[in-house]
Amino acid sequence: MNWDLIRWDRDGLVATVVQDSQTLQVLTVAYMTRTSLERSLEIGETVFWSRSRQELWHKGETSGNTQRIREIRVDCDGDALLILVEPRGPACHTGAVTCFYRTLEETHE
Amino acid sequence: MNWDLIRWDRDGLVATVVQDSQTLQVLTVAYMTRTSLERSLEIGETVFWSRSRQELWHKGETSGNTQRIREIRVDCDGDALLILVEPRGPACHTGAVTCFYRTLEETHE
Repeated sequence: MNWDLIRWDRDGLVATVVQDSQTLQVLTVAYMTRTSLERSLEIGETVFWSRSRQELWHKGETSGNTQRIREIRVDCDGDALLILVEPRGPACHTGAVTCFYRTLEETHE
Repeated sequence: MNWDLIRWDRDGLVATVVQDSQTLQVLTVAYMTRTSLERSLEIGETVFWSRSRQELWHKGETSGNTQRIREIRVDCDGDALLILVEPRGPACHTGAVTCFYRTLEETHE
Protein backbone atom coordinates (compact mmCIF):
# COMPACT_ATOMS: atom_id res chain seq x y z
CA MET A 1 0.00 0.00 0.00
CA ASN A 2 1.56 3.24 -1.12
CA TRP A 3 -0.11 5.99 0.89
CA ASP A 4 2.24 8.58 -0.55
CA LEU A 5 0.39 8.39 -3.87
CA ILE A 6 -2.62 10.11 -2.29
CA ARG A 7 -2.84 13.88 -2.16
CA TRP A 8 -5.42 14.74 0.49
CA ASP A 9 -7.13 18.10 0.03
CA ARG A 10 -7.17 20.99 2.52
CA ASP A 11 -9.92 19.20 4.47
CA GLY A 12 -8.00 15.91 4.50
CA LEU A 13 -10.33 14.36 1.93
CA VAL A 14 -9.91 12.53 -1.34
CA ALA A 15 -12.75 12.26 -3.89
CA THR A 16 -13.69 8.63 -4.38
CA VAL A 17 -15.56 7.12 -7.32
CA VAL A 18 -17.28 3.81 -6.63
CA GLN A 19 -17.81 1.53 -9.61
CA ASP A 20 -19.51 -1.87 -9.82
CA SER A 21 -16.75 -4.35 -10.67
CA GLN A 22 -19.14 -6.50 -12.72
CA THR A 23 -21.44 -4.09 -14.57
CA LEU A 24 -18.90 -1.21 -14.54
CA GLN A 25 -21.76 1.12 -13.62
CA VAL A 26 -20.59 4.18 -11.67
CA LEU A 27 -22.51 3.95 -8.41
CA THR A 28 -21.56 6.97 -6.36
CA VAL A 29 -19.01 9.66 -5.61
CA ALA A 30 -18.07 10.03 -1.96
CA TYR A 31 -15.11 11.24 0.08
CA MET A 32 -12.54 9.44 2.15
CA THR A 33 -10.21 10.52 4.91
CA ARG A 34 -7.09 8.59 5.80
CA THR A 35 -8.97 7.01 8.69
CA SER A 36 -11.92 5.99 6.52
CA LEU A 37 -9.56 4.44 3.98
CA GLU A 38 -7.71 2.56 6.73
CA ARG A 39 -11.02 1.28 8.07
CA SER A 40 -12.13 0.32 4.53
CA LEU A 41 -8.97 -1.73 4.10
CA GLU A 42 -9.45 -3.39 7.50
CA ILE A 43 -13.00 -4.56 6.84
CA GLY A 44 -12.84 -4.89 3.05
CA GLU A 45 -15.89 -2.68 2.61
CA THR A 46 -16.31 1.00 1.78
CA VAL A 47 -16.17 3.42 4.69
CA PHE A 48 -16.48 7.07 3.72
CA TRP A 49 -16.34 10.41 5.48
CA SER A 50 -19.74 12.03 5.62
CA ARG A 51 -19.16 15.71 4.96
CA SER A 52 -22.67 16.64 6.05
CA ARG A 53 -22.59 14.68 9.33
CA GLN A 54 -18.83 15.06 9.82
CA GLU A 55 -18.38 11.45 10.81
CA LEU A 56 -17.21 8.09 9.49
CA TRP A 57 -19.89 6.39 7.44
CA HIS A 58 -19.72 2.66 6.84
CA LYS A 59 -21.77 2.35 3.67
CA GLY A 60 -24.66 -0.07 4.24
CA GLU A 61 -24.22 -0.24 8.00
CA THR A 62 -27.95 0.36 8.55
CA SER A 63 -29.38 -0.58 5.12
CA GLY A 64 -27.31 -3.72 4.67
CA ASN A 65 -26.26 -2.45 1.24
CA THR A 66 -22.55 -2.75 1.84
CA GLN A 67 -19.93 -2.63 -0.90
CA ARG A 68 -17.21 -5.29 -0.91
CA ILE A 69 -13.95 -3.85 -2.17
CA ARG A 70 -12.32 -5.62 -5.12
CA GLU A 71 -9.70 -3.06 -6.13
CA ILE A 72 -8.56 0.45 -5.28
CA ARG A 73 -7.02 2.62 -7.98
CA VAL A 74 -5.55 6.12 -7.73
CA ASP A 75 -5.38 8.72 -10.47
CA CYS A 76 -2.31 10.28 -12.03
CA ASP A 77 -2.13 13.25 -9.68
CA GLY A 78 -3.31 11.37 -6.60
CA ASP A 79 -6.35 13.46 -5.81
CA ALA A 80 -9.00 10.89 -6.69
CA LEU A 81 -9.59 7.22 -5.94
CA LEU A 82 -11.53 4.67 -7.98
CA ILE A 83 -12.86 1.75 -5.97
CA LEU A 84 -14.22 -1.29 -7.75
CA VAL A 85 -16.80 -3.01 -5.58
CA GLU A 86 -19.25 -5.86 -5.45
CA PRO A 87 -22.38 -4.17 -4.08
CA ARG A 88 -24.77 -6.11 -1.83
CA GLY A 89 -27.66 -3.85 -2.80
CA PRO A 90 -28.54 -0.45 -4.24
CA ALA A 91 -25.90 2.24 -3.78
CA CYS A 92 -28.35 5.11 -3.45
CA HIS A 93 -30.36 6.03 -0.38
CA THR A 94 -33.35 6.43 -2.75
CA GLY A 95 -33.20 2.72 -3.52
CA ALA A 96 -31.76 3.30 -7.00
CA VAL A 97 -28.91 1.03 -8.06
CA THR A 98 -26.75 4.08 -8.71
CA CYS A 99 -26.81 7.60 -7.31
CA PHE A 100 -26.54 8.81 -10.93
CA TYR A 101 -30.09 7.81 -11.84
CA ARG A 102 -30.99 11.19 -13.39
CA THR A 103 -29.80 12.87 -16.54
CA LEU A 104 -29.19 16.58 -16.27
CA GLU A 105 -31.90 17.18 -18.85
CA GLU A 106 -34.63 15.63 -16.69
CA THR A 107 -36.82 18.12 -14.86
CA HIS A 108 -38.90 15.54 -13.00
CA GLU A 109 -37.53 12.94 -10.64
CA MET B 1 -31.49 21.39 -18.77
CA ASN B 2 -32.24 21.61 -15.10
CA TRP B 3 -29.44 23.66 -13.56
CA ASP B 4 -31.17 23.64 -10.19
CA LEU B 5 -30.23 20.00 -9.74
CA ILE B 6 -26.59 20.98 -9.30
CA ARG B 7 -25.23 21.96 -5.91
CA TRP B 8 -22.01 23.87 -6.52
CA ASP B 9 -19.53 23.75 -3.65
CA ARG B 10 -18.09 26.74 -1.79
CA ASP B 11 -15.64 27.30 -4.65
CA GLY B 12 -18.39 27.10 -7.27
CA LEU B 13 -17.24 23.65 -8.40
CA VAL B 14 -18.89 20.29 -8.95
CA ALA B 15 -16.89 17.05 -9.03
CA THR B 16 -17.19 15.41 -12.44
CA VAL B 17 -16.52 11.78 -13.31
CA VAL B 18 -15.74 11.10 -16.96
CA GLN B 19 -16.57 7.63 -18.22
CA ASP B 20 -16.04 6.11 -21.67
CA SER B 21 -19.52 5.52 -23.09
CA GLN B 22 -18.39 2.39 -24.96
CA THR B 23 -15.95 0.60 -22.64
CA LEU B 24 -17.45 2.09 -19.44
CA GLN B 25 -13.90 2.67 -18.20
CA VAL B 26 -13.65 5.56 -15.74
CA LEU B 27 -11.22 7.95 -17.40
CA THR B 28 -10.77 10.87 -15.06
CA VAL B 29 -12.19 12.97 -12.24
CA ALA B 30 -12.17 16.70 -12.86
CA TYR B 31 -14.11 19.76 -11.74
CA MET B 32 -16.59 21.98 -13.50
CA THR B 33 -17.83 25.48 -12.86
CA ARG B 34 -21.11 26.76 -14.24
CA THR B 35 -19.18 28.48 -17.02
CA SER B 36 -17.22 25.36 -17.92
CA LEU B 37 -20.44 23.33 -18.04
CA GLU B 38 -22.10 25.94 -20.24
CA ARG B 39 -19.11 25.89 -22.57
CA SER B 40 -19.13 22.05 -22.58
CA LEU B 41 -22.77 22.09 -23.66
CA GLU B 42 -22.07 24.68 -26.36
CA ILE B 43 -19.26 22.75 -28.01
CA GLY B 44 -20.33 19.21 -27.08
CA GLU B 45 -16.93 18.45 -25.56
CA THR B 46 -15.64 18.46 -22.00
CA VAL B 47 -14.42 21.78 -20.64
CA PHE B 48 -13.27 21.69 -17.03
CA TRP B 49 -12.04 24.19 -14.49
CA SER B 50 -8.36 23.72 -13.77
CA ARG B 51 -7.97 24.17 -10.03
CA SER B 52 -4.19 24.38 -10.30
CA ARG B 53 -4.13 26.93 -13.11
CA GLN B 54 -7.42 28.60 -12.11
CA GLU B 55 -8.69 28.77 -15.65
CA LEU B 56 -11.04 27.06 -18.08
CA TRP B 57 -9.50 23.97 -19.58
CA HIS B 58 -10.88 22.53 -22.80
CA LYS B 59 -9.75 18.93 -22.54
CA GLY B 60 -7.65 18.02 -25.58
CA GLU B 61 -7.28 21.58 -26.83
CA THR B 62 -3.54 21.13 -27.26
CA SER B 63 -3.21 17.32 -27.36
CA GLY B 64 -6.17 16.73 -29.66
CA ASN B 65 -7.51 14.19 -27.19
CA THR B 66 -10.93 15.76 -26.83
CA GLN B 67 -13.92 14.03 -25.29
CA ARG B 68 -17.24 14.17 -27.17
CA ILE B 69 -20.13 14.31 -24.71
CA ARG B 70 -22.80 11.65 -25.05
CA GLU B 71 -24.72 12.10 -21.80
CA ILE B 72 -24.55 14.08 -18.58
CA ARG B 73 -25.95 12.58 -15.39
CA VAL B 74 -26.23 14.10 -11.93
CA ASP B 75 -26.19 12.27 -8.62
CA CYS B 76 -28.96 12.12 -6.01
CA ASP B 77 -27.75 15.08 -3.98
CA GLY B 78 -26.52 17.10 -6.93
CA ASP B 79 -22.91 17.44 -5.92
CA ALA B 80 -21.38 15.21 -8.59
CA LEU B 81 -21.75 14.84 -12.35
CA LEU B 82 -21.13 11.75 -14.48
CA ILE B 83 -20.32 12.51 -18.09
CA LEU B 84 -20.34 9.71 -20.64
CA VAL B 85 -17.97 10.51 -23.47
CA GLU B 86 -16.51 9.23 -26.69
CA PRO B 87 -12.78 9.98 -26.25
CA ARG B 88 -10.66 10.89 -29.26
CA GLY B 89 -7.50 9.69 -27.51
CA PRO B 90 -6.00 8.94 -24.10
CA ALA B 91 -7.56 10.80 -21.18
CA CYS B 92 -4.36 11.09 -19.18
CA HIS B 93 -1.55 13.57 -19.73
CA THR B 94 0.83 10.59 -19.28
CA GLY B 95 -0.58 9.00 -22.42
CA ALA B 96 -2.50 6.37 -20.48
CA VAL B 97 -6.05 5.67 -21.61
CA THR B 98 -7.31 6.45 -18.12
CA CYS B 99 -5.91 8.60 -15.33
CA PHE B 100 -6.59 5.64 -13.00
CA TYR B 101 -3.78 3.50 -14.41
CA ARG B 102 -2.29 2.65 -11.01
CA THR B 103 -3.59 0.48 -8.20
CA LEU B 104 -3.01 1.83 -4.72
CA GLU B 105 -0.90 -1.22 -3.96
CA GLU B 106 1.66 -0.45 -6.66
CA THR B 107 4.84 1.18 -5.41
CA HIS B 108 6.42 1.65 -8.82
CA GLU B 109 4.90 3.62 -11.68
